[in-house]
Amino acid sequence: MISKEKIERAHKRISKGIHNTPVLTSQSIDKISGCRIYFKCENFQKIGAFKMRGALNAILSFDKKDIEKGFVTHSSGNHAQAVALSSKICNTKSYIIMPKDAPKIKIEAVKSYGAEVILCENNERARISQCNKILERTGANFIHPYDNYDVILGQATCAKELYEDKNIPRLDNIICPVGGGGLASGTIKATEFFSPETKVVLSEPENASDAHDSFNQKKLIPVKNPNTIADGLKTSLSKKTFNIIVSGTEEIITVSEAEIINSMKIIWERLKVICEPSCSLPLAAILKNKSKFRNKSVGIILTGGNIDLSNIPF
Amino acid sequence: MISKEKIERAHKRISKGIHNTPVLTSQSIDKISGCRIYFKCENFQKIGAFKMRGALNAILSFDKKDIEKGFVTHSSGNHAQAVALSSKICNTKSYIIMPKDAPKIKIEAVKSYGAEVILCENNERARISQCNKILERTGANFIHPYDNYDVILGQATCAKELYEDKNIPRLDNIICPVGGGGLASGTIKATEFFSPETKVVLSEPENASDAHDSFNQKKLIPVKNPNTIADGLKTSLSKKTFNIIVSGTEEIITVSEAEIINSMKIIWERLKVICEPSCSLPLAAILKNKSKFRNKSVGIILTGGNIDLSNIPF
Repeated sequence: MISKEKIERAHKRISKGIHNTPVLTSQSIDKISGCRIYFKCENFQKIGAFKMRGALNAILSFDKKDIEKGFVTHSSGNHAQAVALSSKICNTKSYIIMPKDAPKIKIEAVKSYGAEVILCENNERARISQCNKILERTGANFIHPYDNYDVILGQATCAKELYEDKNIPRLDNIICPVGGGGLASGTIKATEFFSPETKVVLSEPENASDAHDSFNQKKLIPVKNPNTIADGLKTSLSKKTFNIIVSGTEEIITVSEAEIINSMKIIWERLKVICEPSCSLPLAAILKNKSKFRNKSVGIILTGGNIDLSNIPF
Repeated sequence: MISKEKIERAHKRISKGIHNTPVLTSQSIDKISGCRIYFKCENFQKIGAFKMRGALNAILSFDKKDIEKGFVTHSSGNHAQAVALSSKICNTKSYIIMPKDAPKIKIEAVKSYGAEVILCENNERARISQCNKILERTGANFIHPYDNYDVILGQATCAKELYEDKNIPRLDNIICPVGGGGLASGTIKATEFFSPETKVVLSEPENASDAHDSFNQKKLIPVKNPNTIADGLKTSLSKKTFNIIVSGTEEIITVSEAEIINSMKIIWERLKVICEPSCSLPLAAILKNKSKFRNKSVGIILTGGNIDLSNIPF
């Protein structure tokens, strides 16, 4: 399903629509953490998050006729903006189903990329029912945020860029946060093909630890009513992402809400970048497990920077 | 005093001690401002600000014997950290005179680079008297934050990097904030030698408009008791910087405190980087003069990112 050649083709396919994002380092964070960290800054990606990679690859993988029919997804987060902008780039329509109570600023952001926003009740059943209605009415194509190999192929290009960066040494570890598992799966596959000696570690909120539990018990255990500030990580793994994660992860480290907020503050203060709470989990995982990473070279994917500045948690 | 060759030599001299900082762009900021902006991110520079360039060049321009004697400056801002770290890089001592009431976090930052911090009353006379005592006691060398050609040569390397970046088109304008005028002078000289068709615009707080007044009246008029959130821009021009600024500036645009805070928020929100209030002036100048910059390519130097996160002004 995922091969080296497919990742390479995906990267070529999306290259004009995405940024090869910069990698930042901080001597002071290295000092605090006891290892050498390379932050791949996807907060500087188009729409402010890595999700652009997967959505654009998925959409560009349809043939011309299907692209013309447009695209549908349900999301209140970065995937919504990614599908909207990717559709715009392809000169086609997008229909984004968002919960009624989503922040206005997010709804406006999606609309600003030319999407039609359809509001519905904030529950799974309403979302799916609304989604089916739109699919029927428009003939458009559904883009799942992570349970989709083309999306995973797109997310894989992020770690691939990190491995191909000539200014970066061989990495002992790469760490990314895990929610639905699209980025985690892409990172695992990119590592397998482009830097097989690097070990993949995932980081997850204690309060939304379905990937951790599923990984350790080797069966898919969805999360129920997760309550975490890392709102990008509330989703549960799917079958596709679970299978990849089980096969290619060294360890899943869970962190507390306080640890997430603390490492978020360190990133803002020392790295001088705005990142979402979800971005902060890899650094929190390192700070919680300093001996594991001591003197190692570690890549971290800073997943996104879309945050409401009137609601900073520190 | 400043030649093309001297800037080139300065750049070579400091290259191992500084970052060639990344340049970021934002489609959404371009849309708001009506021009294409290239942000040169000196908030990602060592010590979190461009001041590292000037201090390191000044210190490395001394001969070995003088370097051994160490360096002195008075500053409560980024220049203090820059002299401290540059001295550390050169394995020598630094003595930093700071006002008693400087924020603890700034004093600690300077100490963390190995400097000896000497506290004094927060007035010009106390500062100079303390400084003279240290110079006498130690035989160390004084590094002025901007009234020093070696410092100006170092600051010039920032615009030089922007002009030499192959991913950036010819710039119609380059804009930087002006306080004491070290960065402004360096930018003017780099522009003269490396991109003579680019016009230099400076931006200054209305509440500390000595450069604006001096430029327009063609005589040095120091500022008295400036009150601005852009604390890096409270200083007045010196003779050296005044002369360069008069000769090479197209226009100095002043902006209000509200305009500074508004553009700072736009940079945080859209560019996803942490910048100081002082950094925000060039964007504020564009937003105030949209017709002047319409459809132009504009370079902006984002000067630094050292800010107290418990005191965000929006």
